[in-house]
Amino acid sequence: MGADHAKIIAEDLPGAQLQIVCDMDVARAQGLADRYGAVDVAIHPDSVIARDDVDAVIVASPDFTHTPLSLACIKAGKRVLCEKPLSQLPDECLAVMAAEQASGAKHVMLGFMRRYDQSYIEMKQALVGGTLGRALMMHNFHRNVETPAADFTGAMAITNSAPHEFDVVRHVLGTEYASITAFQPQRSDALVAPVIMVLETTDGHLVTIEINNNAAYGYDVRGELVGESGTIATNTVAYSRTDMKLSSSTRYETDWRGRYHAAYVRQNRDFQAFVETGKFPDIASDCWDGYCAATVAQAGVEALVSGMKTQVEMAPKPEFYA
Amino acid sequence: MGADHAKIIAEDLPGAQLQIVCDMDVARAQGLADRYGAVDVAIHPDSVIARDDVDAVIVASPDFTHTPLSLACIKAGKRVLCEKPLSQLPDECLAVMAAEQASGAKHVMLGFMRRYDQSYIEMKQALVGGTLGRALMMHNFHRNVETPAADFTGAMAITNSAPHEFDVVRHVLGTEYASITAFQPQRSDALVAPVIMVLETTDGHLVTIEINNNAAYGYDVRGELVGESGTIATNTVAYSRTDMKLSSSTRYETDWRGRYHAAYVRQNRDFQAFVETGKFPDIASDCWDGYCAATVAQAGVEALVSGMKTQVEMAPKPEFYA
Amino acid sequence: MGADHAKIIAEDLPGAQLQIVCDMDVARAQGLADRYGAVDVAIHPDSVIARDDVDAVIVASPDFTHTPLSLACIKAGKRVLCEKPLSQLPDECLAVMAAEQASGAKHVMLGFMRRYDQSYIEMKQALVGGTLGRALMMHNFHRNVETPAADFTGAMAITNSAPHEFDVVRHVLGTEYASITAFQPQRSDALVAPVIMVLETTDGHLVTIEINNNAAYGYDVRGELVGESGTIATNTVAYSRTDMKLSSSTRYETDWRGRYHAAYVRQNRDFQAFVETGKFPDIASDCWDGYCAATVAQAGVEALVSGMKTQVEMAPKPEFYA
Amino acid sequence: MGADHAKIIAEDLPGAQLQIVCDMDVARAQGLADRYGAVDVAIHPDSVIARDDVDAVIVASPDFTHTPLSLACIKAGKRVLCEKPLSQLPDECLAVMAAEQASGAKHVMLGFMRRYDQSYIEMKQALVGGTLGRALMMHNFHRNVETPAADFTGAMAITNSAPHEFDVVRHVLGTEYASITAFQPQRSDALVAPVIMVLETTDGHLVTIEINNNAAYGYDVRGELVGESGTIATNTVAYSRTDMKLSSSTRYETDWRGRYHAAYVRQNRDFQAFVETGKFPDIASDCWDGYCAATVAQAGVEALVSGMKTQVEMAPKPEFYA
Ligand SMILES: [Mg+2]
Ligand SMILES: [Mg+2]
Ligand SMILES: [Mg+2]
Ligand SMILES: [Mg+2]
Repeated sequence: MGADHAKIIAEDLPGAQLQIVCDMDVARAQGLADRYGAVDVAIHPDSVIARDDVDAVIVASPDFTHTPLSLACIKAGKRVLCEKPLSQLPDECLAVMAAEQASGAKHVMLGFMRRYDQSYIEMKQALVGGTLGRALMMHNFHRNVETPAADFTGAMAITNSAPHEFDVVRHVLGTEYASITAFQPQRSDALVAPVIMVLETTDGHLVTIEINNNAAYGYDVRGELVGESGTIATNTVAYSRTDMKLSSSTRYETDWRGRYHAAYVRQNRDFQAFVETGKFPDIASDCWDGYCAATVAQAGVEALVSGMKTQVEMAPKPEFYA
Repeated sequence: MGADHAKIIAEDLPGAQLQIVCDMDVARAQGLADRYGAVDVAIHPDSVIARDDVDAVIVASPDFTHTPLSLACIKAGKRVLCEKPLSQLPDECLAVMAAEQASGAKHVMLGFMRRYDQSYIEMKQALVGGTLGRALMMHNFHRNVETPAADFTGAMAITNSAPHEFDVVRHVLGTEYASITAFQPQRSDALVAPVIMVLETTDGHLVTIEINNNAAYGYDVRGELVGESGTIATNTVAYSRTDMKLSSSTRYETDWRGRYHAAYVRQNRDFQAFVETGKFPDIASDCWDGYCAATVAQAGVEALVSGMKTQVEMAPKPEFYA
Repeated sequence: MGADHAKIIAEDLPGAQLQIVCDMDVARAQGLADRYGAVDVAIHPDSVIARDDVDAVIVASPDFTHTPLSLACIKAGKRVLCEKPLSQLPDECLAVMAAEQASGAKHVMLGFMRRYDQSYIEMKQALVGGTLGRALMMHNFHRNVETPAADFTGAMAITNSAPHEFDVVRHVLGTEYASITAFQPQRSDALVAPVIMVLETTDGHLVTIEINNNAAYGYDVRGELVGESGTIATNTVAYSRTDMKLSSSTRYETDWRGRYHAAYVRQNRDFQAFVETGKFPDIASDCWDGYCAATVAQAGVEALVSGMKTQVEMAPKPEFYA
Repeated sequence: MGADHAKIIAEDLPGAQLQIVCDMDVARAQGLADRYGAVDVAIHPDSVIARDDVDAVIVASPDFTHTPLSLACIKAGKRVLCEKPLSQLPDECLAVMAAEQASGAKHVMLGFMRRYDQSYIEMKQALVGGTLGRALMMHNFHRNVETPAADFTGAMAITNSAPHEFDVVRHVLGTEYASITAFQPQRSDALVAPVIMVLETTDGHLVTIEINNNAAYGYDVRGELVGESGTIATNTVAYSRTDMKLSSSTRYETDWRGRYHAAYVRQNRDFQAFVETGKFPDIASDCWDGYCAATVAQAGVEALVSGMKTQVEMAPKPEFYA
């Protein structure tokens, strides 16, 4: 995602300058810098965060670095767009929240870009607009062609893939999770089987999530919000339809890049506005959202292991994140 | 179509008895008779029409026999469901009309089954219901996988395929044709190229019809009625959708049998009611409709040859067919 | 459904004769008999079943009568098409199975008409055909405009509505259920809330079922079979599409009658063939299927009450039903 | 469109600077300049074109100014993105072509943004890729909610609306027009009726175009390319689907802005690259394309008036535009 962010900064964010590309692989950093007009490259993120010619930071490094880098940005007083997760450990998320609160201002925006996807925007608008009646359920299907790694597990489906659903569902419904139950079917091969989760919210909604990391047929993310008087569902976007050989067909994307490109651009523009104005964007995810995603994912893994409905135990929400 | 009609009588028309199967090929007749429980077989249609144990006749023989067989049925006082066309010659149609009028009652129902297709029924209902506003245009696409014969011509597309559109459009719009213009693109092979027709009606509508007898990709019939305040289009019926190999697809039929099976059943039930009650069905095609289809087809062939807009010259409509 | 069956016999089953209409309300019985040409009416079903001029019976009476009437038919040696459920009590189903086995031949066909719906037929064909790979999951959504009665409960959603899904999923997947878990969201009014069930099969599939009896927006039944290499989903059948007021729309049915009319006709034709040949139809539901539906429904109610995953305990399958 | 271009420059074209906003209404110019960060405003375009701090020009002024402003840009050696039409008069287009050829390099890119729309891009790719076989026909429907002015005429539909189709069809098919025939149905009110055109190309394709400026129901542009072995059609893009009140629906746009926003951005980025590199973009429209659109539109108006098929007489294509 680092290269994608560099490209978006260079091509879609007039007024933003890709200043430094930081990567342990300096040749790769230089390649990106050359392609997208960065001023400099670096290996050590801490020194980058400290530089005077750096106003803001985008973190797209390995997951375990998200917390320390976010903390460093807060300490340096720099705004940071951190790819999800903030951390897979709720306690680490709480630590970032504590630092952020101590700093007196929000610094961290999380890369839950689904909130900026037009389908979910229309879904939330419909719910807020009232025509669907009160929300009852939200059904979610998240399907990838194949896992990035052969040793991907069901637990990783919950901690690495499902957080996009955990976050966008909370965002659309405006609620928190109370419990989670998890199920898995059996595959005939060694690939990771899908995970199906059923979540109850504190407002009495039901949420179902299918994570199918080896769906084979395409990259396909679907959601349906069921209200008391109607439903709204994401619609697969296709620009053309082909009729051939007794079949009428549209195409799926192979991964999330094409599907969510416009969402990434919107998100990053909102981050740019955050950097310029200091006002945290209305629909962006903050550290509390990152904490919630980590907490429900942790409960989800426990539920998968135990086979039991598992409560989602959350710290009280600080006024700071209200 | 004869076998299809025999099957429909046997399987979908309780109260009707397939009495006699008449075919020049007596073995084929006997096969159908055995399969669908007919009482007898015959070679000569005239003697069949005359039999006392025959109440009604379905004509699905070669086109050139439609007029003489219809005339024989009228003469014998038997109701007949005659496959389209009544004749390709308007004068022959007028002759049947004259005989029918002389007999004092309608005897001939034409097999323009599209009128009984649910899509067109909903289209006509929407127009009559008024929500679309006044009709402005109707667009029609009639596509077959391939022609029945290699020597099929553009003129045959107009005289043999287009009459289904000629009839159902008149039926839906409730109007007559004033002029027809015809065009053909060029194919890269020896197959018959599509024909595109533009028709003006006496009520100021425009009608476009594409006949594409070698569309290759599937059997596909589409229509769209454009009104002053909205449109209604036929929707391709599919019972399932398959997601495979980066594609989401539904299937086309290979020919009209599957696509219009329900329409044939409805049509033949209406014919049965006509036989039983003597009341000509509200939506069925009669000899006047057959005459209109033949007249516009004849003008269409002339238009194709001349490359000019051609007037559709019609005899006055007898009160009998009002 | 009794009137629907009478109509189907009269209009769609040549060779079948609606002999007697039996109803506690004799005026209603006479009305149906007159409309559909029945020979006689009756109040007491036992005497009807015993009559010599009755070859076969269709049971569409209140649910609690299904077991005794099926037993009476078995005893009388008459084939019976019994609307679902055979019974809501597994023990009653076992009793009918015992009687049927003692009689030496299958007599009871259950009215799980979904098996005859074109969408499910194509789904099963795709699975058997192998292109989807091994089945992993089946997702099901069953939505009614509103409940028949105001005092409808979540338990009734499981025992009265879900059996259609319980049966057709078993049929498509060719498996039995191992466990069931049930959830309910909260509504803002007094209407029954939806029920979501997650079932594990003995072959390692996962099945989700949403029963939403007050979905408000339309009668809408959906299913998706997810295989290891692709998916197949039911497609909503619509014959026309309307463009008006910035919207492109198709219509939903208001209830199951329109949606499943063709399935009922196919099912009843298969019953007619069963009566005529004595050969139990390949895809029809038998008493074992009725027992399975009752057993999983009972476990489902227990799961809804307890909030726990509940095992589906089944008697061994008799060789007779293999 | 001027404000839209200013917005795109400011928001979507990093590296481009909105330098001067030129408008006869200086207050409007100042408003745009303030909103999008322009350096200056002006009333007289000639002086703007001449300024040293102006590298390139976007012309979105009234149609009759397109030719003189394009000529001024060529004379000043500045690249210009000129909204369609270059001129409605073929002779004016030829004059611009002459000036451009005399200058030795292409200066003018025309704003036929449809070429940059993803649907048409996929259509052209499919045709070039060969899977559809040779192109036979292209059907086009261009529908607006309502005309901008009450006195809009059928001739204006051809000269002002249809050029988008004239251009994109030539672009997709890679051909020129040979003849055009035009038809109009009658409306029941004073609004301009739709125009239907049938065009033959020099390569034997047929093209149909419906321009319906008062379609009422939505902004809806459709196209279908029919090849010898299959077809590809534009698909209506919708991000969500709503189920309410027995209807399943998606939304139409109200005008072209939303529908073609991404196409405008792509087009203007290509213009930016043209300005920076001097290399005319592969898929952009040039003055020859503008001449072709004007010529066929002129023939189309003549065809509408005469009711006759009208030849499209074109000057020979200069090597310069090959
Ligand atoms: Mg993300
Ligand atoms: Mg016919
Ligand atoms: Mg049933
Ligand atoms: Mg334009």
